[in-house]
Amino acid sequence: MIMSQIITKVEFAKLVESIESHEGYERPFAFAIGIATCDRRGEVLEVYYPHPNCNANFGTAAVLASLTCHISGNETAILTLAQIESALGYFYPFCEEPGHINIQLLRSIKTAMDEKTLQGDQKIVATFLHKNKEGSLGPVTSVEDAYLRLQLLSHRLVKVNEINLDNLFQVLPNVAWTNLGPISLNELTSRQLEARLNGNWLHVYAVDKFPPMADYIVPSGVRIGDASRVRLGAYLGSGTTVMHEGFMNFNAGTTGPSMIEGRVSAGVEVGADTDFGGSFSTQGTLSGGGKTKIKIGERCLCGANAGTGISLGDDCVIEAGLYITPGMVVAVIDVHGKVVYETKARELSGKSGLTYRRNSQTGKLEALSKKNTIELNAILHKN
Amino acid sequence: MIMSQIITKVEFAKLVESIESHEGYERPFAFAIGIATCDRRGEVLEVYYPHPNCNANFGTAAVLASLTCHISGNETAILTLAQIESALGYFYPFCEEPGHINIQLLRSIKTAMDEKTLQGDQKIVATFLHKNKEGSLGPVTSVEDAYLRLQLLSHRLVKVNEINLDNLFQVLPNVAWTNLGPISLNELTSRQLEARLNGNWLHVYAVDKFPPMADYIVPSGVRIGDASRVRLGAYLGSGTTVMHEGFMNFNAGTTGPSMIEGRVSAGVEVGADTDFGGSFSTQGTLSGGGKTKIKIGERCLCGANAGTGISLGDDCVIEAGLYITPGMVVAVIDVHGKVVYETKARELSGKSGLTYRRNSQTGKLEALSKKNTIELNAILHKN
Amino acid sequence: MIMSQIITKVEFAKLVESIESHEGYERPFAFAIGIATCDRRGEVLEVYYPHPNCNANFGTAAVLASLTCHISGNETAILTLAQIESALGYFYPFCEEPGHINIQLLRSIKTAMDEKTLQGDQKIVATFLHKNKEGSLGPVTSVEDAYLRLQLLSHRLVKVNEINLDNLFQVLPNVAWTNLGPISLNELTSRQLEARLNGNWLHVYAVDKFPPMADYIVPSGVRIGDASRVRLGAYLGSGTTVMHEGFMNFNAGTTGPSMIEGRVSAGVEVGADTDFGGSFSTQGTLSGGGKTKIKIGERCLCGANAGTGISLGDDCVIEAGLYITPGMVVAVIDVHGKVVYETKARELSGKSGLTYRRNSQTGKLEALSKKNTIELNAILHKN
Repeated sequence: MIMSQIITKVEFAKLVESIESHEGYERPFAFAIGIATCDRRGEVLEVYYPHPNCNANFGTAAVLASLTCHISGNETAILTLAQIESALGYFYPFCEEPGHINIQLLRSIKTAMDEKTLQGDQKIVATFLHKNKEGSLGPVTSVEDAYLRLQLLSHRLVKVNEINLDNLFQVLPNVAWTNLGPISLNELTSRQLEARLNGNWLHVYAVDKFPPMADYIVPSGVRIGDASRVRLGAYLGSGTTVMHEGFMNFNAGTTGPSMIEGRVSAGVEVGADTDFGGSFSTQGTLSGGGKTKIKIGERCLCGANAGTGISLGDDCVIEAGLYITPGMVVAVIDVHGKVVYETKARELSGKSGLTYRRNSQTGKLEALSKKNTIELNAILHKN
Repeated sequence: MIMSQIITKVEFAKLVESIESHEGYERPFAFAIGIATCDRRGEVLEVYYPHPNCNANFGTAAVLASLTCHISGNETAILTLAQIESALGYFYPFCEEPGHINIQLLRSIKTAMDEKTLQGDQKIVATFLHKNKEGSLGPVTSVEDAYLRLQLLSHRLVKVNEINLDNLFQVLPNVAWTNLGPISLNELTSRQLEARLNGNWLHVYAVDKFPPMADYIVPSGVRIGDASRVRLGAYLGSGTTVMHEGFMNFNAGTTGPSMIEGRVSAGVEVGADTDFGGSFSTQGTLSGGGKTKIKIGERCLCGANAGTGISLGDDCVIEAGLYITPGMVVAVIDVHGKVVYETKARELSGKSGLTYRRNSQTGKLEALSKKNTIELNAILHKN
Repeated sequence: MIMSQIITKVEFAKLVESIESHEGYERPFAFAIGIATCDRRGEVLEVYYPHPNCNANFGTAAVLASLTCHISGNETAILTLAQIESALGYFYPFCEEPGHINIQLLRSIKTAMDEKTLQGDQKIVATFLHKNKEGSLGPVTSVEDAYLRLQLLSHRLVKVNEINLDNLFQVLPNVAWTNLGPISLNELTSRQLEARLNGNWLHVYAVDKFPPMADYIVPSGVRIGDASRVRLGAYLGSGTTVMHEGFMNFNAGTTGPSMIEGRVSAGVEVGADTDFGGSFSTQGTLSGGGKTKIKIGERCLCGANAGTGISLGDDCVIEAGLYITPGMVVAVIDVHGKVVYETKARELSGKSGLTYRRNSQTGKLEALSKKNTIELNAILHKN
């Protein structure tokens, strides 16, 4: 058990060592200090983690774990002012050094608590996530857990499809996102009336399990034309522009620079230097689109009002207005204009260097290769 | 004439009977107490009715009608504090019982009036709608009337296409919807300047005759990814999710659970367990799409970036990317793959069990039936 | 050098004449008084010009130029309270007359300065734009300059493609647009934390170089279903409705009444009485769509989920769901149903009276003319 007191760096190191050597103690895969909003019954609606930690800051984790009696497993604890003061005592030797974001965060929180600027429906939490023996995080266990996983993605600390998101929909509450903050749907009508009768205006901008990402984190090097269309849990690579018509679901993302005017469904990854034209559609797995997650390679040009139900390799083009579904028959055409092959589109999934179009004279679906026949056959038969 | 006083339930019943027996008095089809916002000239911009009443609460209606000298016809009256106090006096025997939402509402309004928290541009109104001898509401007569009809739809008190909305566009003012509430377009520039000069930020989120539904009512069991895309007057069945790309016009709706990522035009009804893929389009009647209102049946799968200008029966599929217009020629194909029939798409309007696709080898538009030839012919010739 | 004092109209005229006769003085093509928001380092994030002046109000321009020592070139100056008071002194003879919007604006600003209601991050600026000898404005030089050019467009003072916008992207900062105003991306995380710890809600509605137009100007006679989809710099002709699915980029516009449910790319002009169906797409020049700017004529009907990479003349129709790219082969069909011609779509760019469709029986792309063969050939060969 640790107590509030001022210590040295050496003492801090010893303290951490002692905590970490506790039987059963596991270094968390991720942890974060958050500010939660609750409804009138005290149920957590959402949590803002300004600085999630992933495979880092194990000393800070150890101290917070010890203060909240956390050992292992995916858990969250409410932090009291006393615990925060204790933590700040232990972090004292580092508090004048720059870059200790968890310490800065705790100090800001302590100030807010001292000055009583937090609202009654806000709580301070510490959340820990651990990988199990199979190397997975296990299913989502709580709202606090869910919001940490989503923020790990949007902070680019984990990649699309890297962490387990099972149970996410079951755990996340459906919330009214308003200009006055998140509101429980049970309380919305009374809050709307209350606002009106006080001459205020309550504007609901979404009713959803997922808030917009930009209300939590805007990663470096991105532009977002309409922030309501990028859900928390999206992974936007640096250099990504999501135009107004673009949409990025949770656990969907781009790995590098790209211009996204189309819709990136949950589970879909888009390679660097790829453009999605306006309304380009990627078939998702959430609603009736099968179980195969689509991946789009690098340097692809995906036309406006087009779409795909198959993966693309690198350097592919889909003509504007053409929607490829896995069961369509495609004529594969070599560099000499000769049909080499006819196959279902799903057999071409993931292949590189193909330009898909619908022949404007015959209505036939074609995939033009940049390769000649022999190379092409080799590519087609390689996985 | 009634006066403010405390009465018993028996006296209340007698009072209602006496009001209802007045010559010419008609029980309203719908009525509601609302909070209106006006512009600087006193013109009503919009009205919020927290609890519209439809074919219900006739006693309350009678008292409010009597207090505002309302007899029949579609009318609205401004409620004074004195009238509200009188009404509360008459409702006294019920005021401790739960569930009397009109009484609770009047009490909240009275408190706001007493405490002067309402703004100068707000008015309290009572609006009554009556069916005429033909059983119709007649054309929309005022802003207050229009907003009540739209809220009846969004509160699921009337169905899509059930009530008359003639004159709606003529009556509704075009309003700037902002984070500071609705603002008349005549006053917008001065309000924008005023906000800036006071270090505030005035954000306009729409300039439209229709506000977003969710600022008035979020019916139970729905999710809305981007609330700006569901207009007041939409009817969202329980279990409906309108994703960010979805759009729901006024007098458009879903009857049950559905996933809407496409656009539901005014007048269009979507059956239960039907999915609209991203950007799926239903041809509307408002702008050049003819006069036939489209209806989509149950358990249909309407592909992304596809669309329809004809109605669908139950259990239909439209392939992603395929837009069916009424004049297209469709080859109807039976379960054995045989073309049974060629016909204009409009002749298939409303038929069930058809899968529409464009043949990827011939470019031909096809409708695959789950039935064999003989059954199919029967279906085709049945209306 | 002018001094603060009260003058007569005759003296004002002499003053203006004397300023304008200064060597090198040029009447500005455009000028405006604006309110700028800066970040914590003093960098300008955006400027609101309530009343831009274009080829007008040269007397006001002369006085402001003199007060800020402006002679020629695209420049901006910060206005001090003393300068504003001086200007108001010189404008004194007009200040009781209606319609002098610059004077009214300066008086409102002076009041705000006197009452200290402006925030520390706000500045008052005067910006001047001049045409060079080639009759062009030259490349964009500053944020203040950029915002004035964009507002000239949205105020309908200059037309689409009329003024030089070179360098626009390089000059404009990427900004977080929030319910608390524009915020530098460097400051966003600290502002988000600060808001939370004070029990407030900071909502980011876009992260973009361009704000929504409606936060600056709503021109007369327009409706905008979702204001986030019309960027500052759009030109909306009177009678234009941009529905929720519509999108209007900067330097894109409509010349008259139109119903826009599709996407108008930068550089694209849409003629009067033309309708864009939902998700209709115009290929842009910004991202990979070539350098030819598309123009759409009058009275065109552009179908939902369709698109074009070529220009349309007047009275054209594109069938719903059909995307025309310049390299597609089109069969041109006369009024008798006879194929007259086969040509690449780009050869038909800008032609009038054509109805484009994909034949539902053959998959062939067709352009149906309202003309007979001979006329048609003449039209095809006229530019």
